Amino acid sequence: MAHDIAALKARLAGIALEDNPALVRQKSRDFFWYSPTLKRQLDTVAGEIIATPSSEGEVLRILEACFALGIPVTPRGAGTGNYGQAMPLAGGLVLDMSGLDKVLEVAPGRVRAQAGAIIADIDTACRSSGQEVRLHPSTYRTASIGGFIAGGSGGVGSITWGGLRDLGNIIRLRIATLEATPRLLELSGEEVEKVAHAYGTNGIILEVEMPLAPAYDWIEAIIGFEDLNRAAAFANALGEQDAILKKLLSVIAAPLPQDYFLRHRKYLPAGQHVVLAMIAPIASAAFDSFTARWGGNVLFHSDRAGTEEARGLPPLYELAWNHTTLRALRVDPAITYLQTLYPFPDQLALVARIHEELGDEVPAHLEFVRFDGKITCFGLPLVRFTDEARLEAIIARHEALGIPVFNPHRYTLEEGGMKQTDAVQLAFKRETDPAGLLNPGKMIAWENPDFDFATGRTYLFPGLSAQA
Amino acid sequence: MAHDIAALKARLAGIALEDNPALVRQKSRDFFWYSPTLKRQLDTVAGEIIATPSSEGEVLRILEACFALGIPVTPRGAGTGNYGQAMPLAGGLVLDMSGLDKVLEVAPGRVRAQAGAIIADIDTACRSSGQEVRLHPSTYRTASIGGFIAGGSGGVGSITWGGLRDLGNIIRLRIATLEATPRLLELSGEEVEKVAHAYGTNGIILEVEMPLAPAYDWIEAIIGFEDLNRAAAFANALGEQDAILKKLLSVIAAPLPQDYFLRHRKYLPAGQHVVLAMIAPIASAAFDSFTARWGGNVLFHSDRAGTEEARGLPPLYELAWNHTTLRALRVDPAITYLQTLYPFPDQLALVARIHEELGDEVPAHLEFVRFDGKITCFGLPLVRFTDEARLEAIIARHEALGIPVFNPHRYTLEEGGMKQTDAVQLAFKRETDPAGLLNPGKMIAWENPDFDFATGRTYLFPGLSAQA
Ligand SMILES: Cc1cc2nc3c(=O)[nH]c(=O)nc-3n(C[C@H](O)[C@H](O)[C@H](O)COP(=O)(O)OP(=O)(O)OC[C@H]3O[C@@H](n4cnc5c(N)ncnc54)[C@H](O)[C@@H]3O)c2cc1C
Ligand SMILES: Cc1cc2nc3c(=O)[nH]c(=O)nc-3n(C[C@H](O)[C@H](O)[C@H](O)COP(=O)(O)OP(=O)(O)OC[C@H]3O[C@@H](n4cnc5c(N)ncnc54)[C@H](O)[C@@H]3O)c2cc1C
Repeated sequence: MAHDIAALKARLAGIALEDNPALVRQKSRDFFWYSPTLKRQLDTVAGEIIATPSSEGEVLRILEACFALGIPVTPRGAGTGNYGQAMPLAGGLVLDMSGLDKVLEVAPGRVRAQAGAIIADIDTACRSSGQEVRLHPSTYRTASIGGFIAGGSGGVGSITWGGLRDLGNIIRLRIATLEATPRLLELSGEEVEKVAHAYGTNGIILEVEMPLAPAYDWIEAIIGFEDLNRAAAFANALGEQDAILKKLLSVIAAPLPQDYFLRHRKYLPAGQHVVLAMIAPIASAAFDSFTARWGGNVLFHSDRAGTEEARGLPPLYELAWNHTTLRALRVDPAITYLQTLYPFPDQLALVARIHEELGDEVPAHLEFVRFDGKITCFGLPLVRFTDEARLEAIIARHEALGIPVFNPHRYTLEEGGMKQTDAVQLAFKRETDPAGLLNPGKMIAWENPDFDFATGRTYLFPGLSAQA
Repeated sequence: MAHDIAALKARLAGIALEDNPALVRQKSRDFFWYSPTLKRQLDTVAGEIIATPSSEGEVLRILEACFALGIPVTPRGAGTGNYGQAMPLAGGLVLDMSGLDKVLEVAPGRVRAQAGAIIADIDTACRSSGQEVRLHPSTYRTASIGGFIAGGSGGVGSITWGGLRDLGNIIRLRIATLEATPRLLELSGEEVEKVAHAYGTNGIILEVEMPLAPAYDWIEAIIGFEDLNRAAAFANALGEQDAILKKLLSVIAAPLPQDYFLRHRKYLPAGQHVVLAMIAPIASAAFDSFTARWGGNVLFHSDRAGTEEARGLPPLYELAWNHTTLRALRVDPAITYLQTLYPFPDQLALVARIHEELGDEVPAHLEFVRFDGKITCFGLPLVRFTDEARLEAIIARHEALGIPVFNPHRYTLEEGGMKQTDAVQLAFKRETDPAGLLNPGKMIAWENPDFDFATGRTYLFPGLSAQA
């Protein structure tokens, strides 16, 4: 890593820079430590300098300078990714986008914002129009919209709107390339797939245009069942109620809620498997009828909790998605997790099957979503971690049963995803990052075109061993 | 029919009444003539007097008087039903609800209106809030909201929100009973199922509260395919695109569009099977990408048609749902139709199968919807009518292949629906209409509890032969 940081600083006069090693190290990390594997692999990773531009013009100056000097550029939103996505494996410059945080325009059905804007702040700006973003990660209050698009996949809202990369969930992106003279490109329609969930390897997102949905004071409910399969069947059936508008539908097996949802604990009797639901107030009576038909125990209902009592509680979505894992980790640092898909139409049978076999070691956490037009569920099961070999065996067992695993213990796009080259993203990287300086080490297809995914071998970015 | 109409008139002084036989006959009819069978059976049906109340108080006075005098009461919205639902089979009073047409309250996510309000007028009142009703029949510009709830089933919007009776698509109903002293009842949650699609046999709907969705200037598109099965597969796949917000998704086999969509004819080359789609403008680019992937021919796109040119065209939804049938009937009075369901997950195979066998005699018209959480399609195929026996044979053939038929050639709730007693609606009628005076002859379970649906025999209301 012989990057000429001094020359870079000279070229970037007037732009906020930081090269204090402690601060640089801090801004070179994300939630990679969720994974014991990534923790081992990435703990020493650090960039060499942080730049925090406050305008598009400054971003372009930074990109031009880095290209000229051959310095890697790793974009960073809020650093809440949990696969080391935002970690600069080859050192160089960390491009902190938090200074580009303006909400530019709110219109019926859509919002335009700079990539560094915090998602919750976007919603605040939309609120007076009665609208909010369709989808957000459970890190809503801290994550940036650009980081969500480049590094996330869906979350709260996916029960109605599907995944973030589904055609129509991102209207338009404005990006900058990393070339001698960086270009600005506008992508819409299917073109957004070129950079959505590409970890910033083929363009810096400057501005986004996202669809909006009506904003509600969502009812938060926790429904309990004695039996996990019944809880899952209830959630599935509620998901299939097309007219009951909802934003979250999670199932969490006992004893996880009782052990880890500390501030909600008084609502959670021992043995109850819980369904977390966010329901539009207009559907309140319909939801009550539906829950009663299923014999669900209403353990918590935000409309019926006293305001005093509700004040101390985190929002319900901060018990769900990857926040379930976070709450578990806070109590028991030996916990880790997986990300799985229970494919339609066998989702309930597969949940029952794997839970019967591994339920104590891999307790269930399901997130129901719309997926290709059907209701099914992702799993974010917790894992009582022993060693990496056992973790691999658990993954293999899931896959043998027909439950694909999106491995959250890998830092590359392909290994954490579909285990194959994304030809569109690769081709786009050839256009936008000819020197391969954008977030190096994350796209195997670029770094090692001959890598054979079929072997099951883990990809190790050579640049990383250079750092260690 | 020895109803004491003179005594009734005396009691109803001050309320708008009409007993001119020509006018009474006119307001005793609906679109029953869509069906050659119903046309034969119901052509002579007429009430004895029309009352047009202008307030809830007047409705209650009418109901009290009719109960006292034993006079049947058949509610009427706009009379656009097409199974003779609103026709007074036992004579008596037709309760014209068109005077109760006020929009009472528009709030985020919901609207409260009187039952006689025209659906398009409700949307006009909601428009300044950026909202519109979720669902409407293709008779949007003429039908009343109360008539839709009592007599309809879904339509434009069902591709996103499912059927009208799905829990959550009706928030609350306020109804009046027909008793010595009529009562007012409020129904919410699953209670609304007691009177939704009950043809007004067990309560007069006075006021409704309906959920709202964001209003858009929906893009209207007509996409053509050489092959019907490809058109259906495209529509199915577009339906499954969770993030492309849409309001209508219909498939109409050639040569129907060419023969019957007269004002759109210049857009419709011979041989093209068409998909009609209403798409939210925010999904425009996504929809274009999706259509291009499928190789669909964009025959018409409202955003790209000249305004002059577009001025002469009916709204796209007036080519769809039962308006397809209406347009065919206008050109060829010998046409009739069926209402079918192609059950998920076999919908495309069933469409292909039946069309291959009967496509010339029963050309396909599909309406894609969300149904129990999945995308599938209803059929409203046209039928080149020869005689009633052949029509029955066509119905039997559909059912033999596993395509349920909701027979639109029957005037009873059960025969046009699930061919079984709705125990909830029957029990409610016992409470709300103890004398059986509300819309007599429409609920077999009430008129003839021993009727055996299994025989396949058509129910004939005895009161009807008394009229003929
Ligand atoms: C407790 C917890 C819960 C979570 N829940 C969810 C969830 O529900 N759903 C979900 O999808 N994820 C979830 N995540 C992961 C993560 O929080 C989200 O994806 C989040 O949206 C990332 O935003 P960020 O601003 O923190 O991005 P960062 O972590 O800073 O960056 C993410 C990736 O995007 C790249 N990037 C950032 N900004 C840009 C830009 N402007 N242009 C190009 N590339 C850029 C980075 O290089 C990196 O590869 C969770 C993580 C945690 C720790
Ligand atoms: C061209 C055409 C297209 C159509 N498209 C559709 C469609 O897309 N979807 C669909 O569902 N239907 C459709 N229909 C049927 C019909 O138009 C609709 O269901 C419409 O909503 C009925 O409303 P209306 O006011 O005309 O009711 P009416 O026909 O007057 O009444 C319908 C039924 O409701 C009862 N009723 C009316 N008002 C009340 C009240 N206040 N309280 C209790 N009972 C009451 C009547 O007694 C009758 O049984 C179509 C019909 C035609 C002719």
